[in-house]
Amino acid sequence: MSAGRSTEDALVRRIRELAGRTSGAGVRVGIGDDCAVLETSPGTRLLATTDLLIEDVHFRRRWAEPADLGWKALAVNLSDIAAMGGRPRWALVALAGTEGTTAQEIDAFYAGALELATPHETVIVGGDTSSSPSGWMINVTLLGEAAAPLLRSTARPGDTLAVTGALGRSAAGLAVLERNAAPAGVDPTALAAVTAAHLRPHPRVREGLWLAAAGGVTAMMDVSDGVGIDLPRLAGESHAGAAIDVDRLPVDDDTRAVAAALGVDPLGWATGGGEDYELLLACEPTALARLQRGLAEAYRTHLTPIGEITRGGGVRWRSHGREVTVARGFEHFAARPAASGADA
Amino acid sequence: MSAGRSTEDALVRRIRELAGRTSGAGVRVGIGDDCAVLETSPGTRLLATTDLLIEDVHFRRRWAEPADLGWKALAVNLSDIAAMGGRPRWALVALAGTEGTTAQEIDAFYAGALELATPHETVIVGGDTSSSPSGWMINVTLLGEAAAPLLRSTARPGDTLAVTGALGRSAAGLAVLERNAAPAGVDPTALAAVTAAHLRPHPRVREGLWLAAAGGVTAMMDVSDGVGIDLPRLAGESHAGAAIDVDRLPVDDDTRAVAAALGVDPLGWATGGGEDYELLLACEPTALARLQRGLAEAYRTHLTPIGEITRGGGVRWRSHGREVTVARGFEHFAARPAASGADA
Repeated sequence: MSAGRSTEDALVRRIRELAGRTSGAGVRVGIGDDCAVLETSPGTRLLATTDLLIEDVHFRRRWAEPADLGWKALAVNLSDIAAMGGRPRWALVALAGTEGTTAQEIDAFYAGALELATPHETVIVGGDTSSSPSGWMINVTLLGEAAAPLLRSTARPGDTLAVTGALGRSAAGLAVLERNAAPAGVDPTALAAVTAAHLRPHPRVREGLWLAAAGGVTAMMDVSDGVGIDLPRLAGESHAGAAIDVDRLPVDDDTRAVAAALGVDPLGWATGGGEDYELLLACEPTALARLQRGLAEAYRTHLTPIGEITRGGGVRWRSHGREVTVARGFEHFAARPAASGADA
Repeated sequence: MSAGRSTEDALVRRIRELAGRTSGAGVRVGIGDDCAVLETSPGTRLLATTDLLIEDVHFRRRWAEPADLGWKALAVNLSDIAAMGGRPRWALVALAGTEGTTAQEIDAFYAGALELATPHETVIVGGDTSSSPSGWMINVTLLGEAAAPLLRSTARPGDTLAVTGALGRSAAGLAVLERNAAPAGVDPTALAAVTAAHLRPHPRVREGLWLAAAGGVTAMMDVSDGVGIDLPRLAGESHAGAAIDVDRLPVDDDTRAVAAALGVDPLGWATGGGEDYELLLACEPTALARLQRGLAEAYRTHLTPIGEITRGGGVRWRSHGREVTVARGFEHFAARPAASGADA
C-alpha cells in the first residue's frame, strides 16, 4: 500500500473501526494489540483453517472488485468451517496491496469481508497489511468451534454420498468473466447468477451446522477443487473407495445455458471446475430422505445423492452403466499452467 | 509451485510428514482435513496473531534461504505471543512460491519453521500452498494461550519502561546483507552475529512467560518496528506519555562495530531499525531490580530500564538532558519506499 509507516497506525485504526465489534462475541481484545485475546466456549473443539488468494492465480482484478475479494477470502474459509459442521467465530485478515492501492480500495476490501462475516456472527479480530511488489495477495485465517466436528476421514462402505446445491456454477461464472464479451444468446439473469456464484459464493455454514446436529452424517467436506478431486480425497482419507453416477451430479439450468452458449460440456465444470463451496457428505442410507427433507424445509437447500462409499477400489465414475473418466482438477487460468493450490 | 493439482496431495502428505506430531499437544486433527481440530486448555484465553512476509518487501531471496524464511515467519509470530506472556501452541503456515520453486525448497522452508517451532512446543496444524506469479509470499497464523495476557494498553504513569536484550542488531544485520561485500575491518563473528539476528531472530517466548508470571509487569509488547514506533504505540494505547533516555538504549558491541565500519549512527538502528523482537515492558519501579535479577538468572537475559511512563504529553526522547528527535520507522528497502507493514 502506498501508506508509509507514519500512516500505518491510521490504517490500523480504520480497520479497527470497520471491524467494529471488537468487544463482545468472545473477544476480550481485538485489533490493536500484539495478539487478539479470545474466549473459547467450554465443551467445544477449536477449528482453525487458512487460505491464500493470490492475484492472477485465484482471481483477476480486471473482474473482481476489492469488495468481492474481501467477501470471497472470507467465504472460502467459512466453507472450511461449514465442512466440519462448525460455528465460525473469529477471522484474521491479511492483505498485501500493490503500490497504487488506495485507502478506498482497502476499505472496500474489508467492507466486503464484513458483509459476509456479520450475518455469520464472525468478528475480524486481527490481521496484517503490507505492500506487495506485484499483485494483491490475501490470507484469511478463520477460527470456529464445534462440539463434535464432522471429519472427512470417517465415511464407511455402504454410506450414501450426497452433495448440496448445484455443481459447476462457479466454473461457468469464471468462463464468462474470463471472456472479453458476454456469450451471445444467454439470459442476463443466468449470466449474473453464475458470475455471482464465482465472485461471491455463499458458504453452507447454516447447512453444515444443521447436518452436524441432525445425526446420520458419517463424513463431510466442502467441494473447493471439484468433486473429481475432492471425492477421492474423502474416500482416500476414509480408507475406502466410491462409486459415482455422474448423471446424477446436480447441474442447474443457468450453468447448462452458459455451457451450451460456449459449446462446453457442463459435466466437466461440475466435476473439475471447483470453487462451488457446496458440501459433500457421506450418510447412512436410511438417513438420506430425512436429511433431504430437513435441509429443504430449513434452508430450501437441495441435497442430491450421487453415489456410495465402497470397500475399496478407488473412485469409479459411471454414466448410463458404463465406467467413464471425469475432468479432474482445475487449473485456474490456462495462461498459468503452474497455478495450483494445496490445502494442507 | 511447479506442482500441478495431481501432485498437490503428495505435497500435503509431505508437509504432514514434516509437521510430524499431528496427534498429541492438543491436536485432535492436524493437517489433512478441512480444518485443524484443537483442544484448548480450560482457564486460559486463546491468543491469535498473523503476519505476512513478502519477498522484496520483508526479505530478499538473494540473502535469505528458504529455511531462514520458515524460521523467521514463525519467529515474528512467536514474538507476538511472547509479547502477551503467552504460550505458543499451534501454527498455520501458508506459502506461495514462484514457478521455479522446488520440492527441496518447500521442504527446507518447513524444516526451518519446525526448527524453531519444535523447541517452543508449537505444532504446525494446517496451512495452504499456492503458486505466486512473482515473488514468494508467506503468511503464518499462530495460536497460543495465556491465563492472564499482558496487554500493551495497561501501562500507568510512573511505571518504569524497560527492554530485553539489545536493540539495532537486526538493522545492522540487514545493512550487512544488503551490501554486495562485507564491510572491511569488522570481526567475522560480529558480522555473523548481526546477520543471524536479522535472519533467524530468537523470540523471547520463555522470557515473556516468566515476566507474565513474575508480577509487577503492567504492560508489554514486542519491538517489531523499533522503539521509535513501538513505544509511542504502547504509550498511546495506555492513554499516557513517556520520557525516554536514548543514551540508555541497549546497543551491543557487534552492532557498534558494524555501525562504525559503515559510518552509521547505531542509535538510528536502535530506535528505527525494527525487527529486533525484544520485549518492551512497563513495570512498577519497585519491581525492576527483581525482574532484572530473575531474567538474568533464568535466561541470562538483560533487562535495561530506558525511561518511564508519564501522565501525557506524547513520547519525549532525551539525550544528556536535552530533548532530541529519533529515527522513527523502518522502510525495509530504500529502493521500495512504499514498503510498509501495519499489524492490525
